[in-house]
Amino acid sequence: MDEQINSYLEKNRSLYLKQMTDFLSIPSISSDSTHKADVRRAAEWLAGDLKNGGMDHVRLMETAGHPVVYGDYLKAEGKPTVLVYGHYDVQPVDPIDKWKTEPFKPVIKNNIIYARGCSDDKGQVFMLAKMAESILAVKKELPVNIKFFFEGEEEIGSAHLNDFVDDHLDLLKADVLLVSDTTMVGLDQPAVCYGLRGLCGLEVRLQGANGDLHSGVYGGAVQNTLHAMVELLATLHDDKTGKVTVNGFYDQVRPLSSEERATCEKLSDDKALMKQLDLNALYGEEGYSTVARIWARPTLELNGLFGGFQGEGLKTVIPSTATAKITCRLVPDQDPEVIGSLLKKHFEKHLPVGVKLDVVLMDHAEPFVMPLDHPALKAADAALEDAFRLKPVFSRQGGSVPIVNTFHDKLGLAPVLMGFGLDSENFHAPNEHFHLVNFDRGLRALIAFLYFLPEKM
Amino acid sequence: MDEQINSYLEKNRSLYLKQMTDFLSIPSISSDSTHKADVRRAAEWLAGDLKNGGMDHVRLMETAGHPVVYGDYLKAEGKPTVLVYGHYDVQPVDPIDKWKTEPFKPVIKNNIIYARGCSDDKGQVFMLAKMAESILAVKKELPVNIKFFFEGEEEIGSAHLNDFVDDHLDLLKADVLLVSDTTMVGLDQPAVCYGLRGLCGLEVRLQGANGDLHSGVYGGAVQNTLHAMVELLATLHDDKTGKVTVNGFYDQVRPLSSEERATCEKLSDDKALMKQLDLNALYGEEGYSTVARIWARPTLELNGLFGGFQGEGLKTVIPSTATAKITCRLVPDQDPEVIGSLLKKHFEKHLPVGVKLDVVLMDHAEPFVMPLDHPALKAADAALEDAFRLKPVFSRQGGSVPIVNTFHDKLGLAPVLMGFGLDSENFHAPNEHFHLVNFDRGLRALIAFLYFLPEKM
Repeated sequence: MDEQINSYLEKNRSLYLKQMTDFLSIPSISSDSTHKADVRRAAEWLAGDLKNGGMDHVRLMETAGHPVVYGDYLKAEGKPTVLVYGHYDVQPVDPIDKWKTEPFKPVIKNNIIYARGCSDDKGQVFMLAKMAESILAVKKELPVNIKFFFEGEEEIGSAHLNDFVDDHLDLLKADVLLVSDTTMVGLDQPAVCYGLRGLCGLEVRLQGANGDLHSGVYGGAVQNTLHAMVELLATLHDDKTGKVTVNGFYDQVRPLSSEERATCEKLSDDKALMKQLDLNALYGEEGYSTVARIWARPTLELNGLFGGFQGEGLKTVIPSTATAKITCRLVPDQDPEVIGSLLKKHFEKHLPVGVKLDVVLMDHAEPFVMPLDHPALKAADAALEDAFRLKPVFSRQGGSVPIVNTFHDKLGLAPVLMGFGLDSENFHAPNEHFHLVNFDRGLRALIAFLYFLPEKM
Repeated sequence: MDEQINSYLEKNRSLYLKQMTDFLSIPSISSDSTHKADVRRAAEWLAGDLKNGGMDHVRLMETAGHPVVYGDYLKAEGKPTVLVYGHYDVQPVDPIDKWKTEPFKPVIKNNIIYARGCSDDKGQVFMLAKMAESILAVKKELPVNIKFFFEGEEEIGSAHLNDFVDDHLDLLKADVLLVSDTTMVGLDQPAVCYGLRGLCGLEVRLQGANGDLHSGVYGGAVQNTLHAMVELLATLHDDKTGKVTVNGFYDQVRPLSSEERATCEKLSDDKALMKQLDLNALYGEEGYSTVARIWARPTLELNGLFGGFQGEGLKTVIPSTATAKITCRLVPDQDPEVIGSLLKKHFEKHLPVGVKLDVVLMDHAEPFVMPLDHPALKAADAALEDAFRLKPVFSRQGGSVPIVNTFHDKLGLAPVLMGFGLDSENFHAPNEHFHLVNFDRGLRALIAFLYFLPEKM
């Protein structure tokens, strides 16, 4: 790491953290229409920060939903161009009563910052902006060209991103895609991610009688919609093997290589995970290690289930409706649309008597893997080793970064997924936090990456 | 029917309906502590009405919960004493958006009144009060002694009733118990109920990890609490036979006589029920007709089920908790405590891996049947035939009137369950209503019962 840049970063650390705190204080919850103005406010804050950092052409670009924040530096003639992606929108905060601090009043304690979005992904977006700002402040020029592209709809499935990219193919042209929205494999162990799971989401609704019924008057004579839902959902898994029992679900799954299996087994630390989550047992698909289950095997998860009375005490009703929210995590080479249609067929086939079915297919994202010998991955490898003083792991990720496929398919971009969050940092849950030691090391790694990239390409 | 009384009832019909509307306008929801003052207001209204109607010793009597309304007429020397029971509390009104009129602004349309409590049980409590008031107004004396006992906690399991009865055994001494809280078997077909189902309620809670988890980061490696709940609840029924599969659940069930089976079959009108409820199929225990399933077979019903995300769209969480609310309807000679403990054992035995279980036993009520040759039933038989010009059916009821056992066990009272609601009148659900034709005929039947009773006893 360049000494001048290093001392600049040390000198400016407090200022940067203060700025990050301001950014995290804006409740940019993209799924909640009452926060629409806040999402825009976060976009404006970010645009202002890029402009202050020396970027050109900084602007908000409209979509049919929340705006994109764009800014670039194109003065590195003959050097590669990096499209830098992140998202400034965040997940909802419910259940709010489980937060120990307020989600939009960031608190720093023991070098950890607590706030919604600090790890996923506003904290990392902020680091990407500071990566360019810091080099420019010290060196007056960047070693590569950069195009910043920050979206506000990642947490709601990036609904308008495809259209936006189609409409701006020239503007977004680049050689490499840099994304900081993945995690390290441990507090001190950096990782470059070369594979992501995809997603297929749906909602299943059952309707029984035309209204809730008194369980004394009708109980025993009509289908209880909740029983029907339970019966239907119980057909989705084999509880002995943990496998999804939907016909054809695994047909397109690409098997793990024996090297990948070995890496997964080596990285699986079941005891630590059980301790972290306060569980007396883990549970998953037979025949795979914990890390393999997360990185490379598909799942079908219930994310929400509800029907009938939820108040205090009892209410003797037979509920008329029941709803289940489901997402599948998919792996190469599963096709989200194929899986959605297999699921729909499954529900129709196993529908219990006496209820009507409605299946609504929702968000989907393709799974992805990248060839391990790509030069951009080598630059990331070198940069992480330089900043962390440790060889990074080539990892996969259980989550989805839906835009990776969009940018690959439409712009031919190879993604470098180099993130600095941890799986234990509660993103999508109460008490999201981010270890600032990886803010420091991560920022240095990002800066180093920009210097290593032209060498390796 | 006495001509003088009949014309008095005709002349006072509008006034009575106006009074009933006032009574139904008070939101006496006993389960909701924010309505505590309203429950008392309903009690005070009722006490005022009994006093105006000529009852003596009218007063509110305190319990550890909502008050009892008491009033009596003890001047019929040498005649039987009737303890008259009803409840002035009502069910909650959610889901409020399903109501077509406001639950506490009664509306009369086509000789049907719409309001929470009009059928269960405030409308019928009001009829019981008017039964005595009308006779006294015309005849200046009653043919029997009466003790009114109206409680405000029936919809929350009559929690303080046992203690109250224990403390007032002398005050409540009587020969017969009259209850109007059951239903007729059709709009024009009156019924005397000789059997009630009991109740055993519980809540099942599962806890997985110590917080909601991101389904991308952990999905596949930990038990999903909702999957565990679905798996657990799916073990409760045999979906082929519709039978409850909890070990020992049917051991204490008294079989139906062949006469009872025949009555049940005769009264079952599956097509009408399917039409009423907008269902394309009924569903229940193999080998029993619809009416037998409701009157004389036990059930296990899910009344509420919830966990995870319930908002709009998707949220990719693995929920950490799941809750199920369950009530069993029980039949003679099942013991609610035995059933509760069998259920608890079942849940413990079938608990999936990776979650913690908490079973909370809640309300319970004993099932009940009365000998068919009891003289009080003969008086009810004659009174209903007189008012409806049709022989009543001797029926059972799928619901519970928990106090019946209390009064039977502690005071040796034989209950006459003569109610005027209909199963289709949406009690415990939105748009509760009550057919005023049965307000008129029912009131006449109640009056006739008081005259027939001394003859038959």
